[in-house]
Amino acid sequence: MSERTEIASLGEFGLIDHLTRNIELQNASSVVGVGDDAAVIDHFGKQTVVTTDMLVEGVHFDLMYTPLKHLGYKSVVVNLSDIYAMNAIPTQIVISLALSNRFSLEAIDEFYEGVYAACEKYGVDLVGGDTTSSQKGFIISVTAIGEVAPDKFVKRSTAKKGDLLCVSGDLGAAYVGLLFLEREKKIFMESPGVQPDLEGESYVIGRMLKPEARKGIIEFFAQNQVTPSSMIDVSDGLSSEILHICKQSELGCILYEEKIPVAEEMKKAAFKFEIDPTACALSGGEDYELLFTIPQSDYDKLVLNEDISVIGYMTEAEQGAHIITRGGSRHAITAQGWNHLKQ
Amino acid sequence: MSERTEIASLGEFGLIDHLTRNIELQNASSVVGVGDDAAVIDHFGKQTVVTTDMLVEGVHFDLMYTPLKHLGYKSVVVNLSDIYAMNAIPTQIVISLALSNRFSLEAIDEFYEGVYAACEKYGVDLVGGDTTSSQKGFIISVTAIGEVAPDKFVKRSTAKKGDLLCVSGDLGAAYVGLLFLEREKKIFMESPGVQPDLEGESYVIGRMLKPEARKGIIEFFAQNQVTPSSMIDVSDGLSSEILHICKQSELGCILYEEKIPVAEEMKKAAFKFEIDPTACALSGGEDYELLFTIPQSDYDKLVLNEDISVIGYMTEAEQGAHIITRGGSRHAITAQGWNHLKQ
Repeated sequence: MSERTEIASLGEFGLIDHLTRNIELQNASSVVGVGDDAAVIDHFGKQTVVTTDMLVEGVHFDLMYTPLKHLGYKSVVVNLSDIYAMNAIPTQIVISLALSNRFSLEAIDEFYEGVYAACEKYGVDLVGGDTTSSQKGFIISVTAIGEVAPDKFVKRSTAKKGDLLCVSGDLGAAYVGLLFLEREKKIFMESPGVQPDLEGESYVIGRMLKPEARKGIIEFFAQNQVTPSSMIDVSDGLSSEILHICKQSELGCILYEEKIPVAEEMKKAAFKFEIDPTACALSGGEDYELLFTIPQSDYDKLVLNEDISVIGYMTEAEQGAHIITRGGSRHAITAQGWNHLKQ
Repeated sequence: MSERTEIASLGEFGLIDHLTRNIELQNASSVVGVGDDAAVIDHFGKQTVVTTDMLVEGVHFDLMYTPLKHLGYKSVVVNLSDIYAMNAIPTQIVISLALSNRFSLEAIDEFYEGVYAACEKYGVDLVGGDTTSSQKGFIISVTAIGEVAPDKFVKRSTAKKGDLLCVSGDLGAAYVGLLFLEREKKIFMESPGVQPDLEGESYVIGRMLKPEARKGIIEFFAQNQVTPSSMIDVSDGLSSEILHICKQSELGCILYEEKIPVAEEMKKAAFKFEIDPTACALSGGEDYELLFTIPQSDYDKLVLNEDISVIGYMTEAEQGAHIITRGGSRHAITAQGWNHLKQ
């Protein structure tokens, strides 16, 4: 960023015109996009799914090590992940930003580059938003809208006893990526001349800074006529999400430590910090994988998909939620994910 | 508020459970509400309308004189106003909050009392949200969703030459209400023992702190088979909104100062500050009235409605946008509304 254009020089409406000048709507359902009091969406014969998430500088992200383009991308992806977790297809987003005057127009352009990259990759339309000033920092609120065939949405509360507990991808890497970024930040703060040493950690750092949402899993379900009995996305750590499904479905579960999918890169990285990879998977969060349950009779349909791991099964509520460790011992699952409100 | 419960004592999920414990969904279209990754909305045969707005402490509101209950109410209403401005009926909202630890649970409850009061009054369902912490202050992001019969939505860009320019209610009062509140705040800051003197100014202060959205006007349109040719809500001042319609419809207009509806209470209050009531109406903002255009042939249908004033008409773009003053002189309309980004 060699240039710096003050946002005040454009005014609010000039800024909106600038940011939305290249939007091309991708979904036939996007009847009216940015530029009016509201967007109009045509969802004949489908049900509409809506979710919202707020990201606050200093709480959810640190601009010392988060490129604005990645932040724009991630702000969209974390919302799309919630839409996929309903077994729905995201179609539109609206974005509100509050930013202090330390941000230039070039900085906001970088953020929106990431937003548009995510929109293009996932086939969603940006159809509205609001841009205002903040007294301090950068606050991002995204609302995503999706569609699903009538009554094909999947809730958290409908798992059944005996269902298999499954998860996509691998877990815990984003948390370890964050540990590296925080370590290098600390070193930089103490000795500003030292260059960050993130050599070889691109996988875990990428999982933190530029996560993806699990579009492919939802497409796989549709192609193979699988409808999970319950589903949630993994944003606060596997433990926390499992407990949501148990509580809302009024069930217990057994989780096998040895079945929890973790990447080799994550394991190596966790050892550098002398932390247990399983703890990272259980409590790390920000993985944006899908955790879901299926009837045992659908097991055959899943085995072909290498991106899906069966990690346990659902039991009666009275049996509680437990993890069986590699050593064979049994522990109650507790939610120790990031609790932003306790920071 | 005699009690103070720390939000951290509930945790994020405890807080969500607490805030949503009394929700009763009012719309049949609200299939799934709060408590899952996303809400599900059934809009068969209707088009979905969506809008979002962010309110930032210190930019959009001052908690020194804004009761939290009013703030919750207003946060919803300003979004519903955008849905009505599309000629649509709001049906659902989602809310995201970021708040610093200076807010107690009792404070958030007060805010939500206002949110629920607005939901009940306007018949909308709260179906989702996100609650997180902020480093400083209180940030509110609301997204509202509504429905409209296919192709009955009304944009800003479709006014026609010769159409009548109309506005609901009266204008400028919210701005004068704000002037009173700011004056009393200043006095209080200088002499904390002095009680605020807002005697007799309840109308203008109410317009600022607890605005309403113009549901009745949209119902009137439906009952009388009027479809405006263009519409926008008045949030940034009449001048700014008129210029939006002119620019987006590629037209000019003539506005008559004497036709601009202002309340007697506002005029009296404006005189106390030695400011021109017309200037308040043109540039004040936060009125949440509806500005719209109709074909001249529909004029007969409007005359019965005392809440609607015809204030001018649309011309060709080459003639520009002008106001004819009471004295008969002609001035170009310029947007001098609040520009939050220039503060």
